[in-house]
Order: sequence, then C-alpha cells, then structure tokens
Amino acid sequence: MTVTTGRDQPPDQLPIHEALGVGCRLSLAAMTDDFADVILGALADADASDVEVETDDVSTYVAGPEPALLRYLREVVVAAAARAPGVHLSATILLSRGCPGEARCELPADGGPASDAAIELPASGVRAAAHWSLYPLGANGHLPAIERAIEVARRDGTYVRSEHYATRLEGDVADVLATVANGWLEVGRHVQHVASHVTLSIASPTPGGEA
Amino acid sequence: MTVTTGRDQPPDQLPIHEALGVGCRLSLAAMTDDFADVILGALADADASDVEVETDDVSTYVAGPEPALLRYLREVVVAAAARAPGVHLSATILLSRGCPGEARCELPADGGPASDAAIELPASGVRAAAHWSLYPLGANGHLPAIERAIEVARRDGTYVRSEHYATRLEGDVADVLATVANGWLEVGRHVQHVASHVTLSIASPTPGGEA
Repeated sequence: MTVTTGRDQPPDQLPIHEALGVGCRLSLAAMTDDFADVILGALADADASDVEVETDDVSTYVAGPEPALLRYLREVVVAAAARAPGVHLSATILLSRGCPGEARCELPADGGPASDAAIELPASGVRAAAHWSLYPLGANGHLPAIERAIEVARRDGTYVRSEHYATRLEGDVADVLATVANGWLEVGRHVQHVASHVTLSIASPTPGGEA
Repeated sequence: MTVTTGRDQPPDQLPIHEALGVGCRLSLAAMTDDFADVILGALADADASDVEVETDDVSTYVAGPEPALLRYLREVVVAAAARAPGVHLSATILLSRGCPGEARCELPADGGPASDAAIELPASGVRAAAHWSLYPLGANGHLPAIERAIEVARRDGTYVRSEHYATRLEGDVADVLATVANGWLEVGRHVQHVASHVTLSIASPTPGGEA
C-alpha cells in the first residue's frame, strides 16, 4: 500500500496509527475562575509517554494507538475532576481515523484499526452524561454500522436513549469513553474513514433531559 | 414523498425543517465561577421566537429553519460574551440535516436544504478561533463535497489552515458561524445526510497553534 503523509519519513517507517490517521482532539472546559490551572494541570497530570500531544487555543491534539489515546483521555478528564471536585466540567472529544473532515486523503482504503484489542479502562468514580455521534464516511450503508456501535453501548450498559443527532450515554467516565471508543473501533473494522464526536458533561447543575 | 417522524402529525403538515431533520445542538462553556448565570442568561437573552429550544445537562437542542438556527446561535454566543467580557468561553455546535448519528432514518433522500438562502449574520465584534469538521454521509465521493465547503471558507476569509481532523477558522463569531453554516448548506444541496461540528474558542489565554 502507498501512504502519503506529507512527512519526510518513508511511510513504511511510520507507526501504524500514524499511517492510518488515528488520533483525536479534546476540548476540556472547567467552569471555574481557576480554569487554566484545572485544564493545563490535568493535561500535565496525565501520562503522555506514549502519545503525541499539542495544545492550542481551541483544542488539544492527541495522536497514538487507540488504547493509548483512550488511556490518556480518561486520565486527563479524571485529573480535571480530581483538581476541581464538584465543578462543572465538559469535555468534547473528536476521535478520528482516516482523514474525515479534510479535503484530501491519501491514506490506504484497506486498513482496519491500528489495534484490534477492545478498549478497557479502569473505573474512575467520576460520573458523566454524554451525547455521542458517529460518522462512517465514504460508504453507503452507514446506518447498519451505527446500529452495530449502538449495540456496543447497550452491551456496555452506558446506553440511555437516542436523542436528536446523538445517543445519550451515562456512567462512569471510563465506561462512557470505552463505549465511544469501542463503537468507533467496531465501525472502523468495516469502514476506513470514521469519526466520532462526544461531549461529556460532569457535575452539571442542570437536570438531564427526558426522553 | 413519505416522511415518518415518529410524531402524530401527518408529515405533510410538518414544517419543512422538521420534515428534513434540520437542527443543531449547542454546548456552551463559560470558564468562570458565574458560569450558570452566563450560560442560562445567554440562552434567555437570545430571541427564541422562531426556534424550538430544549436544554439538558449536556447540550441545548435547537430546531428551526437554517437561518433561524444560525441567528439564534450567534445571539446566544454573543450574549454570553457580553455577559462575561474577557472570560474564556467555548461553544461546541453540531449542525445536522437528515439523521446522521442515529441508527434509523426514514427521512426523504431527495430533499435539499430547507432554505436556499445564504446565511448572513451581522458582525458582533467578538473574535473566535474555531476547529470545524464536516461529514457528508451515505455517499461515495465525500471529499469533493468537503472541498467545496472549504472553498466557501476561503471566499469568506475565515479559513486559516487545515489541521488534523479539522479546518481552523478565525474571525468575528458571526463570520465563523456563517462559514460553517454555508459550508454545511452547500454540501446539503448534494448530500442528504450531512453533519458539521465546530468548536469555537473565545478569549483563550492559550496561544493559537501554528501550522
């Protein structure tokens, strides 16, 4: 397969996650006057030894194999909650493989996920509610793929209901992130370009909506 | 055409935006101890006379024709900035038509946008940086559609660069939102299911990333 990445290395020397365009963006919000310490502190608290991390004014880009990405995301969100107990937090996460959202993509069409392992994350004790959306791209028949991902959520026990444009999940932050990741991986086994967006809400003073 | 919406009204009595599944979700974050007043106040400040609005603990659902949605989103974000001058805000917005992200969709495959008018929004004086992603679904050849949307951004002057999984936009909040909406509408003229996610960042203390 030919992989053009715009970098200098020959593609066969790239890590597999990079060759497949696997990575994420995280926008963490802490609703407190001390937001900068909470957000930058949480990013610093998490172990970044096996991921690439770049933070700008809109979001934090994280690249690495899927299990490392998810471990890092869980650690950042849980660290923020530990630094600001009871403070309302939100975390918006974009998981991506292939290059959806970009105008050109020269990644191989035949790659599966960079890792075949199911994502398992240790319980955190931090509860979250979430709105989750999943986008298989460049394929007809995207709805059966979404159906399979929702089956993952039902099996995990995080599924609450379908809402407009999103699926509501609830549970331990670790379980919610694992559902999102495993749904994304499940679709990625069949569809080369797949993005997933989730917004997690922690300690919101607003009641959860009803069906 | 047959439209099944799960509601009691016959589909031909539904407003066109509802028959086409046009709407959005907004998660607004204000990084201040007074976040609840800022967020709920901004939602109350905006004119909701021509949109349907439901807020829960994760996001606010807004339904209406595209121009009304965008007018409302602009008013909410600008009202938050007016209530909390200099405070770091973020707004994550999901614009959707058709029913991407849901497992079943019985909306018609042949509808264009509910409105053909280009979105124009009055300048606000509030600057934002944004990461924007666009997902045409259920169609082969989604990359040319994204290319067309990026042309919209270049023409509008809000385009900064392509980044991992997103396009960076900068400008007046009104111009950034108009670019996102017009790119989404442009794709919606050719593809029935299309979702777009954007995260706007206002008054961040973190520098913008470099290409």
